[in-house]
Amino acid sequence: MSSLLVTGTIGIDSVETPHGRRPDVLGGSASYFSFAAALFTRVRLVGVVGDDFPDDYRRIYSDHAIDTAGLEVRAGAKSFRWSARYHGDMSTAETLRTDLNVLEGDSPSIPDAFRDSRFVFLANYHPIKQLEFLEQLSGPELIVADTMNLWIETARDELLATLRRVTGLVINDGEARLLTGRQNLIDAGQAILELGPKFVVIKKGEHGSMLVSPDDLFALPAFPTREVRDPTGAGDSFACGMMGYLAAGDRFDASTLRAAIARGTVVASFTIEGFSLDALRCATPDAVEQRLKRLRDVVRFS
Amino acid sequence: MSSLLVTGTIGIDSVETPHGRRPDVLGGSASYFSFAAALFTRVRLVGVVGDDFPDDYRRIYSDHAIDTAGLEVRAGAKSFRWSARYHGDMSTAETLRTDLNVLEGDSPSIPDAFRDSRFVFLANYHPIKQLEFLEQLSGPELIVADTMNLWIETARDELLATLRRVTGLVINDGEARLLTGRQNLIDAGQAILELGPKFVVIKKGEHGSMLVSPDDLFALPAFPTREVRDPTGAGDSFACGMMGYLAAGDRFDASTLRAAIARGTVVASFTIEGFSLDALRCATPDAVEQRLKRLRDVVRFS
Repeated sequence: MSSLLVTGTIGIDSVETPHGRRPDVLGGSASYFSFAAALFTRVRLVGVVGDDFPDDYRRIYSDHAIDTAGLEVRAGAKSFRWSARYHGDMSTAETLRTDLNVLEGDSPSIPDAFRDSRFVFLANYHPIKQLEFLEQLSGPELIVADTMNLWIETARDELLATLRRVTGLVINDGEARLLTGRQNLIDAGQAILELGPKFVVIKKGEHGSMLVSPDDLFALPAFPTREVRDPTGAGDSFACGMMGYLAAGDRFDASTLRAAIARGTVVASFTIEGFSLDALRCATPDAVEQRLKRLRDVVRFS
Repeated sequence: MSSLLVTGTIGIDSVETPHGRRPDVLGGSASYFSFAAALFTRVRLVGVVGDDFPDDYRRIYSDHAIDTAGLEVRAGAKSFRWSARYHGDMSTAETLRTDLNVLEGDSPSIPDAFRDSRFVFLANYHPIKQLEFLEQLSGPELIVADTMNLWIETARDELLATLRRVTGLVINDGEARLLTGRQNLIDAGQAILELGPKFVVIKKGEHGSMLVSPDDLFALPAFPTREVRDPTGAGDSFACGMMGYLAAGDRFDASTLRAAIARGTVVASFTIEGFSLDALRCATPDAVEQRLKRLRDVVRFS
């Protein structure tokens, strides 16, 4: 079992969906990453918050065997805040407000004890920052990155430089099309492989995901759930459910990647059944196993 | 093995996609239905064309063991024509022109020899016409219908009357949401079951399909293909690939429905790889079996 190093935002969200409204809840991509991956492996978290970050929220990480040695509390700064609203089928968030706050300052540094991490997930962030983060590590074995439209459109060269360094890319369908100019998602995936990554996982929200690599093509629907309360963090949980499983098994061959994507699929299904991290935090390895069994049955045919 | 009775439009299409332009090709929902179902069972076709309908096109049906006793050639009338253009990811057709022509007159009648048909597929059409069609039959065992936004919005009561008579409904995701007001597709499927059908198959285009019934939930991605030239008829081929398989096995229990949906998925993948019916017409049972094997592999995980 390898430890998984994750970085990303940690913050305070206010979210409204057709199922209710939750002000000032624990959020941020790295929060979803950490709790998702912690279902499978030990997690090393790197992030920064302000001194307004509630102790209660910080304690939640420790309760889940998440190593918070890399969680910096910056004095005099305020935590990152995001508020958003989801409508209709909740497929996209309408961002109402983003206060970067502490994220506008220096990136958090990686503690010495984390620099030997072999499995690394780079959250969606400016690709230059992603590279700087990598340069602090002493030779990771598996690097998987996320990215977004903003960097594809405004920092394409830097993003291409990052892509040459990563083993895998997790990206949603619209971003894959934007990055490659290819409409067919298999084409888009193949085009991304030519940019550096050894594998690409394309997220399709309620429609599931697809893995494209030189020697494999895998597609899986989303785990079927009727209890979608808040889709925030679904993609993040998916990515780090996958990464946590890979780190736990200490390998990322084609068959293990498929198994990992199935775990990510299941973990994301817990996340969306509650607001904030409420449902994900309560998920257990047993519950994951039960849903995996169900997911296998959902796609079975003779 | 039961014969499958299909009805729908038969016409002449002019289609443009990013891959080319094809004027005056064989089209119409019933054409796709017939060729898709003919891969599995004997097909009885009911439809009407004008006397401008090319003999060559008519001959294509007979070459595929499609019984055209119900194909009426109406003297003095012109055939149905549709022209459309697809852009970008080709997920929706932009209709450039629709000439109903012969479809504005009386519906074709069902030949006596077809009235004992036990498996019936009702193409998307005004629900009153769908009911009139059913009334000419002597007790079919499985009735599956298609419908569309237009009838959901303009003939809701009539559609609800039809739904009370059918065994299954094939509908796309947007239509399922419009019909039920439910955003979650499993919810939408369950809501449709309360309207009469014993099962609902929700088509999601490039994202595959989902089966909802009281005792089953099945989801499958689309068959992965990079060769998408013309998506016209994909949904029709899917529906009648499924129906053809059900009729061939003369049953529609949960396990057979799953197997049938997989066949529909594969048949649709042939359709979109060529313009008009070019690729579907060349598909063979062997080619279907090969793609089924591939589709099983695509969703396999441990």
